[in-house]
Amino acid sequence: MREMVEVGPGKIAARGWRLEDVALVPTRRTRDIDDVSTDWQMDAYHFEIPAVGHPSDATMSPATVIEMGRLGGLGVLNAEGLWCRYVDPSSILKELSEAAEDVAVERLQEAYREPVKPELIAERVNEIRAAGVTAAVRVSPQHTQELAPVAVEAGIDLLVIQGTIVSAEHVSSEDGVLNLKTYISDLDVPVVVGGATNYKTAMHLMRTGAAGVIIGVGSDEWSTTDAVLGIDVPMASAVVEAAAARRDYLDETGGRYVHLIADGEITDSGSIAKALACGADAVMLGSVLAEAAEAPAVGAWWHSAASHPKLPRGRFRSLTGADVEVPDMEALLYGPATSSEGNHNLFGALRRAMAKTGYTTVKEFQRADMVSYK
Amino acid sequence: MREMVEVGPGKIAARGWRLEDVALVPTRRTRDIDDVSTDWQMDAYHFEIPAVGHPSDATMSPATVIEMGRLGGLGVLNAEGLWCRYVDPSSILKELSEAAEDVAVERLQEAYREPVKPELIAERVNEIRAAGVTAAVRVSPQHTQELAPVAVEAGIDLLVIQGTIVSAEHVSSEDGVLNLKTYISDLDVPVVVGGATNYKTAMHLMRTGAAGVIIGVGSDEWSTTDAVLGIDVPMASAVVEAAAARRDYLDETGGRYVHLIADGEITDSGSIAKALACGADAVMLGSVLAEAAEAPAVGAWWHSAASHPKLPRGRFRSLTGADVEVPDMEALLYGPATSSEGNHNLFGALRRAMAKTGYTTVKEFQRADMVSYK
Amino acid sequence: MREMVEVGPGKIAARGWRLEDVALVPTRRTRDIDDVSTDWQMDAYHFEIPAVGHPSDATMSPATVIEMGRLGGLGVLNAEGLWCRYVDPSSILKELSEAAEDVAVERLQEAYREPVKPELIAERVNEIRAAGVTAAVRVSPQHTQELAPVAVEAGIDLLVIQGTIVSAEHVSSEDGVLNLKTYISDLDVPVVVGGATNYKTAMHLMRTGAAGVIIGVGSDEWSTTDAVLGIDVPMASAVVEAAAARRDYLDETGGRYVHLIADGEITDSGSIAKALACGADAVMLGSVLAEAAEAPAVGAWWHSAASHPKLPRGRFRSLTGADVEVPDMEALLYGPATSSEGNHNLFGALRRAMAKTGYTTVKEFQRADMVSYK
Amino acid sequence: MREMVEVGPGKIAARGWRLEDVALVPTRRTRDIDDVSTDWQMDAYHFEIPAVGHPSDATMSPATVIEMGRLGGLGVLNAEGLWCRYVDPSSILKELSEAAEDVAVERLQEAYREPVKPELIAERVNEIRAAGVTAAVRVSPQHTQELAPVAVEAGIDLLVIQGTIVSAEHVSSEDGVLNLKTYISDLDVPVVVGGATNYKTAMHLMRTGAAGVIIGVGSDEWSTTDAVLGIDVPMASAVVEAAAARRDYLDETGGRYVHLIADGEITDSGSIAKALACGADAVMLGSVLAEAAEAPAVGAWWHSAASHPKLPRGRFRSLTGADVEVPDMEALLYGPATSSEGNHNLFGALRRAMAKTGYTTVKEFQRADMVSYK
Repeated sequence: MREMVEVGPGKIAARGWRLEDVALVPTRRTRDIDDVSTDWQMDAYHFEIPAVGHPSDATMSPATVIEMGRLGGLGVLNAEGLWCRYVDPSSILKELSEAAEDVAVERLQEAYREPVKPELIAERVNEIRAAGVTAAVRVSPQHTQELAPVAVEAGIDLLVIQGTIVSAEHVSSEDGVLNLKTYISDLDVPVVVGGATNYKTAMHLMRTGAAGVIIGVGSDEWSTTDAVLGIDVPMASAVVEAAAARRDYLDETGGRYVHLIADGEITDSGSIAKALACGADAVMLGSVLAEAAEAPAVGAWWHSAASHPKLPRGRFRSLTGADVEVPDMEALLYGPATSSEGNHNLFGALRRAMAKTGYTTVKEFQRADMVSYK
Repeated sequence: MREMVEVGPGKIAARGWRLEDVALVPTRRTRDIDDVSTDWQMDAYHFEIPAVGHPSDATMSPATVIEMGRLGGLGVLNAEGLWCRYVDPSSILKELSEAAEDVAVERLQEAYREPVKPELIAERVNEIRAAGVTAAVRVSPQHTQELAPVAVEAGIDLLVIQGTIVSAEHVSSEDGVLNLKTYISDLDVPVVVGGATNYKTAMHLMRTGAAGVIIGVGSDEWSTTDAVLGIDVPMASAVVEAAAARRDYLDETGGRYVHLIADGEITDSGSIAKALACGADAVMLGSVLAEAAEAPAVGAWWHSAASHPKLPRGRFRSLTGADVEVPDMEALLYGPATSSEGNHNLFGALRRAMAKTGYTTVKEFQRADMVSYK
Repeated sequence: MREMVEVGPGKIAARGWRLEDVALVPTRRTRDIDDVSTDWQMDAYHFEIPAVGHPSDATMSPATVIEMGRLGGLGVLNAEGLWCRYVDPSSILKELSEAAEDVAVERLQEAYREPVKPELIAERVNEIRAAGVTAAVRVSPQHTQELAPVAVEAGIDLLVIQGTIVSAEHVSSEDGVLNLKTYISDLDVPVVVGGATNYKTAMHLMRTGAAGVIIGVGSDEWSTTDAVLGIDVPMASAVVEAAAARRDYLDETGGRYVHLIADGEITDSGSIAKALACGADAVMLGSVLAEAAEAPAVGAWWHSAASHPKLPRGRFRSLTGADVEVPDMEALLYGPATSSEGNHNLFGALRRAMAKTGYTTVKEFQRADMVSYK
Repeated sequence: MREMVEVGPGKIAARGWRLEDVALVPTRRTRDIDDVSTDWQMDAYHFEIPAVGHPSDATMSPATVIEMGRLGGLGVLNAEGLWCRYVDPSSILKELSEAAEDVAVERLQEAYREPVKPELIAERVNEIRAAGVTAAVRVSPQHTQELAPVAVEAGIDLLVIQGTIVSAEHVSSEDGVLNLKTYISDLDVPVVVGGATNYKTAMHLMRTGAAGVIIGVGSDEWSTTDAVLGIDVPMASAVVEAAAARRDYLDETGGRYVHLIADGEITDSGSIAKALACGADAVMLGSVLAEAAEAPAVGAWWHSAASHPKLPRGRFRSLTGADVEVPDMEALLYGPATSSEGNHNLFGALRRAMAKTGYTTVKEFQRADMVSYK
């Protein structure tokens, strides 16, 4: 499949490209920007933009999940996050947002020591449903069996099962371990599951019957999965491999299309365009959403893995500053931009990238030509 | 054509080299610097140096267009720039030159909100023509049909149609969209059009009948096309591909030679030499001209795309400081240099590079040997 | 064997990968972290973690050697270090720990000018043996014949013969030079010897009868072997080559398994996982141990080669600060981590990396899949 | 010959490696450091170390040329430098050494405006000869016909003809241009000539009858040949190519051995070892000598091209500070080192590198094994 390098005799490694290693190349024709559509439909749910909120408490509160849905994207609340541990986590979020970077991980560990309250999950889901947007919550594989029923019962539309790495074949000496294949097929709501890292793991997760598969481990400059575990996922290659698995799975199933959601290296509108051009159907927005005026942690950012009690795997980015004027989520997604760094008007930029390369739908755009720098 | 890499199964990307990835290698012989000529002739117009001013208001005013012509190059005025929006933009340019970098993009957006005045285009063209130099103005593809006739009527010698990306095949659901092929062939003045990114787009633009094709999207450290759109053009490879298209087009037409103007990664005299050695006939000078004593924005620099109302795609470089002694445009182009960084005496350096590699004309110099670092 | 590049006609170089150039790829299945074992056995000695202390005085004192043994690893005391030159080096270590970085190398040279006292070697070994942990000391190849008998006599369990580069075939015009092959086979205790740099040198050292071979020259950002000698060892490739030599040596001897200990580029838990996945049986911990609360030089770090009287080859990293709260060695090896940079809970992280890639023993984990970034 | 990359259709570039891209790999055996010899003999002249002083006024004065000779190397005085323009340049050197970096190039241009005085060349040569060391001066190709006879008349042992790029075939429309081939063969003293950049230019220069050929254009971080001219010479590949030319020239002449002197990327003892291992017979020491206590510009450094009146091509490195204690030239060349950065004891380090890779002479060391990082 992918280019292989020989690290030494007998050890072959797949060569991986990151999104920053590639770029789009306009080539055939251009289009009117008004002829371009960024629509995305997964299962029964329709979205105006191929955007999913990464379930970190730094950006996804019930309020921002609702706002994201209202604006045409898919917000995801972390069922194991602060909103499902505390009746009102506002003061904790404020304290965290002001934490010094060198003690922030300890503060996060402290804040997440409070147990998850199932009744709060139900309450948050109700709040989101009441707003009329698609309701999705995230659970970790470890707590899926305990917490997912609560969320399903409360009426979620989509369940997101997301860990750093999720495999379809978890081998355990313990009894009663989650079997994703039977669990997902038995469930009443569509499931998005991940992260997968390459062709094989993506294919296995597709075979669980999931509606969507997350590709990647959320890598950005605040994720430390590589330093801690030695695991890293170059996104361009990972998405291309997963897209190859999707093609083969389509053939194997006679037409079942599984959606790919890229989670990692999404740092600006340019990387959104590249991830889709590699074959993703949508992208997960993490740190790029932390800048929104509505962000619950006022500009601070951390991955959910950053609060792990024994092995935290993420840095804390301190707040942008309460006095800085920041765009609201609508400007962030649809502009107008007052910054030229690719962090505002994310999907206006996507439309322009599609128009300049001559494509009018995201599905067609997955075929866009690319150039590589190494 | 170019070396290909497999990002993953089914996704092939062309491998691209930047100018900084290659260098000239002296190899056969050396020449006397006095035997070297940097002459350039496009259509009926003759220039002493293969240099075109990038149509940014930061460097190209009527006065600097005239000075550049007087010094043997080709200045280009932006018909959609401040000089064609305001009767006297001097105070605005001064204010912009003093803007703080973090609010500069908003200031630019504000300044360019004023509509373009066709009568000012005519007035500026007249001023340039009166000075006896080649008169060229730039219009964007979107406003070509509206503004180009005004410029032609006013007596320009050359029309530059330049957008970030221009394709010969623009597909639109609207009526009355610009068809470059018929438009250019019907026009009375020679046209330079771009930017093109590779063999195919360069070839298509040559077939419109253009006298010159711009290669690249003006990328330098103040351009953010990559971050915003995910589009990037490694210049060494882009120019080499366009030169291959020029050869094939020469054959196809039985001898029609289209000039290639490299716009991007031109940061010093070394990169001018490399771009020409890759096959360009001339280079566009952007930020390197902002240092001239005559520069209308006193050392500040921005790309024209930096002022886009909804999706700005360029950073603002603040002024070098009013108190710093800067060279005039003549010293910048012809020396003597008092800096050893490749930013002064740009074309004296080109002559020396040609002499050291053994070539006496720009056309022959396009065959110079190169070394690559990766 | 390895990929070759042609630097020029007639000069072929093996292409080398560093640990930072590769990463682990989860692929087949995942495991319960409780099913994972990090056990390591070399000769008669059993360890709970595959960890060897790099014999620098900055981290390995009799007390920390004992603590490391107590915690399940293998500490190594430098028989040519300060503890075997001074009856009580505490005040010297304290002074060194407070040295300014620009004069630190001279201070080290001064401190190590004091001769080694054989009676102190015996005393230190006795102290370590009395604590009931595996007793290992390091001697340099130059002083092996003089000092090793003292250590053996004192009752060490393992002898470590370590220089920057050790070859099995040392050619000398002098008489009486150390012949590793006869020396090691005649010795009563098992020997670990190195550093080796590739297949050939690893194979030669295996044939001396050593129980373990050290791969690498301890390269990290404080080692300057490359700048001083032009010698460098990319660890991923070096370990993979040595693992290939181990396979061939197993075949050649009908089953004699030699342990590989990676010494270099071990900067965090992620690099430990990668080194093992390349084929190492254990890793040498250098600068990562300097952060422990028990570290004899209070956070300062230097390689043993940094004190060379005529040709020092290592920088001095100044202390982390006496007022900074640092984890004890137990937290550093087993957590819980309060840092997310991969520098705490080193072997908890290894267990998790093994679980996520689906392996339950270190030996199996040597087969883990990898991705390469170049 | 060398690996080729296709920058695009029809433009092939040789792939080049720098010294920093490769490293030495110990592999066969090790040697006693006392069995290693760094002797070098060129023509009738014998040296204890393969070291030539780069003829910059920053390091090479009559006094340091003599000291370098006394210490076993070859100093070279620039016949077009300050010592041959001023009766006593001491005060000018002192002023230059204290120049601010941003105006230093202009100060250099000013200082070198004073004409060269032939009688001073003779005087300096006499001073050097009187000290009993090998007397060598450098002239530029442009002034060889005017100044070389003066130097020869004064009794130099070796003539160095060095420009940025020198070709054996200089084509000129002027009469009376230097023909290196006839000039060198007619001369009574052996000539060292350069810089050459690859196989072809090295071969051509060998055929002039030169005793030695300089490879490279002196590139280091203070040289700006790349930025100004677009010309760059990756040293590892350039030296390997020149060594291939030497082999072919040996065959062609039935045994005439031309010495290769590497001038560029020599920043520490590690790079000296790498350049020799690539095939050089000796190295030119530039900025590394500026640190010597005897350096005429007290730690400041500039290339001779940095003072060019119209096109300076080198930066000015300001002095290390009069109050800093610096080693004398002897410690710099032979140690002991009090720094571990590879800048002291340059040739003690070379001996150790040769011993660790198992070679006892520089000629044999040219076969040393290498590893490449890309």
